[in-house]
Amino acid sequence: MAIAGAISQLAGLLGDRLVTSGAVLDQHGQNETYYPLTPPDAVGFPETTEEISAILKICNAETCPVVPYGAASSLEGQHLCTSGGISLDMGRMSNILKINAEDLNVVVQPGITRIRLNEELRATGLFFPIDPGADASIGGMAATRASGTTAVRYGTMRENILALEAVMADGTIIRTGSHARKSSTGYDLTHLLIGSEGTLGIITEVTLRLQGIPEAIKAATCRFASVEDAVNCVILTIQSGLPMARIELLDEMMVRGFNKYSGAGLPEEPHLFLEFHGTQAGVEEQSATFEEIAADYGAKGWETADTTEARNALWAMRHKSHYASAALGAGGHIWPTDVCVPISRLAEAVLQAQRDAVRLGLTSTIVGHVGDGNFHAGLSVDPNDPDEMARAEEFTSALAETALRLGGTVSGEHGVGLGKQKFMTAEHGPALAYMRAIKAGFDPSNILNPGKMLPAAN
Amino acid sequence: MAIAGAISQLAGLLGDRLVTSGAVLDQHGQNETYYPLTPPDAVGFPETTEEISAILKICNAETCPVVPYGAASSLEGQHLCTSGGISLDMGRMSNILKINAEDLNVVVQPGITRIRLNEELRATGLFFPIDPGADASIGGMAATRASGTTAVRYGTMRENILALEAVMADGTIIRTGSHARKSSTGYDLTHLLIGSEGTLGIITEVTLRLQGIPEAIKAATCRFASVEDAVNCVILTIQSGLPMARIELLDEMMVRGFNKYSGAGLPEEPHLFLEFHGTQAGVEEQSATFEEIAADYGAKGWETADTTEARNALWAMRHKSHYASAALGAGGHIWPTDVCVPISRLAEAVLQAQRDAVRLGLTSTIVGHVGDGNFHAGLSVDPNDPDEMARAEEFTSALAETALRLGGTVSGEHGVGLGKQKFMTAEHGPALAYMRAIKAGFDPSNILNPGKMLPAAN
Ligand SMILES: Cc1cc2nc3c(=O)[nH]c(=O)nc-3n(C[C@H](O)[C@H](O)[C@H](O)COP(=O)(O)OP(=O)(O)OC[C@H]3O[C@@H](n4cnc5c(N)ncnc54)[C@H](O)[C@@H]3O)c2cc1C
Ligand SMILES: Cc1cc2nc3c(=O)[nH]c(=O)nc-3n(C[C@H](O)[C@H](O)[C@H](O)COP(=O)(O)OP(=O)(O)OC[C@H]3O[C@@H](n4cnc5c(N)ncnc54)[C@H](O)[C@@H]3O)c2cc1C
Repeated sequence: MAIAGAISQLAGLLGDRLVTSGAVLDQHGQNETYYPLTPPDAVGFPETTEEISAILKICNAETCPVVPYGAASSLEGQHLCTSGGISLDMGRMSNILKINAEDLNVVVQPGITRIRLNEELRATGLFFPIDPGADASIGGMAATRASGTTAVRYGTMRENILALEAVMADGTIIRTGSHARKSSTGYDLTHLLIGSEGTLGIITEVTLRLQGIPEAIKAATCRFASVEDAVNCVILTIQSGLPMARIELLDEMMVRGFNKYSGAGLPEEPHLFLEFHGTQAGVEEQSATFEEIAADYGAKGWETADTTEARNALWAMRHKSHYASAALGAGGHIWPTDVCVPISRLAEAVLQAQRDAVRLGLTSTIVGHVGDGNFHAGLSVDPNDPDEMARAEEFTSALAETALRLGGTVSGEHGVGLGKQKFMTAEHGPALAYMRAIKAGFDPSNILNPGKMLPAAN
Repeated sequence: MAIAGAISQLAGLLGDRLVTSGAVLDQHGQNETYYPLTPPDAVGFPETTEEISAILKICNAETCPVVPYGAASSLEGQHLCTSGGISLDMGRMSNILKINAEDLNVVVQPGITRIRLNEELRATGLFFPIDPGADASIGGMAATRASGTTAVRYGTMRENILALEAVMADGTIIRTGSHARKSSTGYDLTHLLIGSEGTLGIITEVTLRLQGIPEAIKAATCRFASVEDAVNCVILTIQSGLPMARIELLDEMMVRGFNKYSGAGLPEEPHLFLEFHGTQAGVEEQSATFEEIAADYGAKGWETADTTEARNALWAMRHKSHYASAALGAGGHIWPTDVCVPISRLAEAVLQAQRDAVRLGLTSTIVGHVGDGNFHAGLSVDPNDPDEMARAEEFTSALAETALRLGGTVSGEHGVGLGKQKFMTAEHGPALAYMRAIKAGFDPSNILNPGKMLPAAN
């Protein structure tokens, strides 16, 4: 009833930009992983911040759930309207508002995707480095605290947002941060909204830090006799302070997936995919230093991707790991789970994950942004096979426990959404009560993406 | 009464580590700037997290103010017990708990100062880069979101803390973050506590990121015909992506102060003090590139500090800017005010500040971490001269307005404390209500550093 009341008022506000047709609802109820189709009651397509403010005033008064929708590439069900209500599609708010090239930043609306942003920036000689593989929206990336292949060098969304505009549950429009590179005034609401998965406010404008496109870029691949050798090579590389731009691990199963899905034709051994950024001389110095370290761990098959085309082909393949993992199994779906551990414990965590997959009879790939201590296991599952799903569940729980035991976190970048709530108490303990206090203070009627991130208190 | 009741219970808990002798109260009521002596009612010297938890339980029940005390080097009166109550001196909690060299981090108690920390780290080949000049405590630096000369390269406290332990107003002990380099789980309480000036919780443990000591370090100085030339050189240097480790501006008055206070013997023209970190080849490449840029702005008097001793002498002098500024005026006190603006607006802001000082008949130096767009004006004042104090107040207000007009912030690093509260509404607008909601949720009895940071709602 509350939802129905909100929808009729929203229809008055948005006209034909409030949609309830089945196809659009279904489209907004899909996800890239194993969650069942979860259509919302309606989809809104707002065009301005003020319109979002008006929408939230209505939904707050009616206690109608509102879930922002970026590119729907999140992997823990974050964007699904599991309590019904309105999916708020940010796709019509995807303009670049201002490129401040001289200050190395850009102001964008949240619906713009990272690939389009970089296309538009190209002429400036600047780029936005964060690359989660999927062509995610900047708002979604902010809301999930996303990172990806280049975070080892440039940081995650956490380090690359200067300022936000957001609409809060009651329709209040706030601005956080400033265009200065640092500030010591007030509580850090920017970082509070980053990673809040749409549960604290709807991000309507983002000021992103940009980087100069490096003078020289060099990509390379090599392979190792064992995952342990590959990971130990990564550990020493990071410890030695080499400013890697990308350093990605693919285990032998992941390589097999690429061979099957992309016809990669790679020897089925653990690989590292690498990239170096800098001056011409700097890149050669870095790559030579890396080669020396790698040689100590028996690296072989050193190949460089020297042209832009070769480099793009390499990363395009890497970015399809999700689908390449799916190609390995019969179930057709991937349960992707990610953890992050201190770099010194990375080998232990990866080997444990591989052993757990074997023990549980699961088809699993491992691929990761290992320079950060972050990796993903891609479990091939059939959501209609309850036994396999139970084993996948056991695997993710074991991996989460491993990560916490080693001083890490149950998600390095995919976030909590639905799937990781069950580990929040183990990870955060008494701090969870303070997260709940923030949620209660900011969104007392619990309309913003209800049922996500924070497990119900008991 | 509430305070008296708390003190008698705390005396039972802490024994002779709860002190009410005048000398100790006076010591804890002092500050480095123009605020009057503000002794607390008592000083506590806790030794463990559990003890702080017990202290807060008592103070929360009695509604007795508690103000954490680090090294008392904060410049906006943050550590002063302006509502009476307990100054909680963290000096006995200053151990290094664990050096995780292989993960490039260290776990410390909050009372350790940055100089001692770096002394203890030396043997590991690692260092903690953040350098606010003063020998501040790590807890105080976290609580003020401090930065300093090296933030242009290594970031501020915001970028260099992985995890915290804190005691909340009701005595609850929480842990935030993890030892992994990134995480996407839960609201970012780490960043909420960083910069909260003791108003949200008492930090009892800090996990800091460390850096490898660079293979090569080179410091240098040069001078310019005008502040505008110097600042424009900085702007281009930053825009060109040169990874400066330090780039500090001193205006002609500041140089005069160093000549008077430290016998520096420098030509009284605007200077830049610089540092380059990297490999031997990298440092030479960076410094050559910088020299080329600087030449375009008429830089002269290029001097390098090649030995460790020469370098240390240079930065020791720079770190005395506060006292060198005081040496220029008759009043004996410094009103230090800091702002931060987008780098492209830096020249405008600095020139405006210089003009305002002249207009208001104030003796003022300008010195700054200009690579971040951050600079300080050091006004020489006599707190007993109401007219001069009124003009100083007018100056800081004008500078704050300038910073906001240019898209910046009223404090890049010194924080809000008492002095910058009057600008919080102008800077944060409706976001202030959400900061108040956090404070109310975390500290409903308002015992943690009451009256700081957030101006009273009206
Ligand atoms: C093939 C593949 C590879 C991936 N690789 C990576 C990777 O390497 N690293 C990584 O970090 N992630 C990765 N992901 C996950 C995903 O790309 C990220 O989580 C991404 O940040 C989601 O962005 P989105 O625009 O798709 O957001 P959505 O999925 O649409 O939404 C995600 C969450 O953000 C909220 N949200 C969206 N927009 C807003 C807004 N404007 N204001 C407030 N809240 C909002 C939503 O409500 C939801 O809770 C991958 C996904 C796929 C499919
Ligand atoms: C000469 C000089 C130069 C300076 N230069 C710089 C500079 O370049 N950059 C810069 O950023 N600052 C600078 N400062 C300011 C000062 O050094 C910083 O603000 C510093 O971070 C304060 O640390 P402290 O240990 O002295 O904290 P204090 O002054 O003791 O306390 C500061 C605040 O932190 C709170 N606090 C202290 N410990 C804790 C804890 N454990 N838990 C919670 N809250 C706590 C206090 O209650 C107070 O609100 C300078 C100061 C001087 C005197």
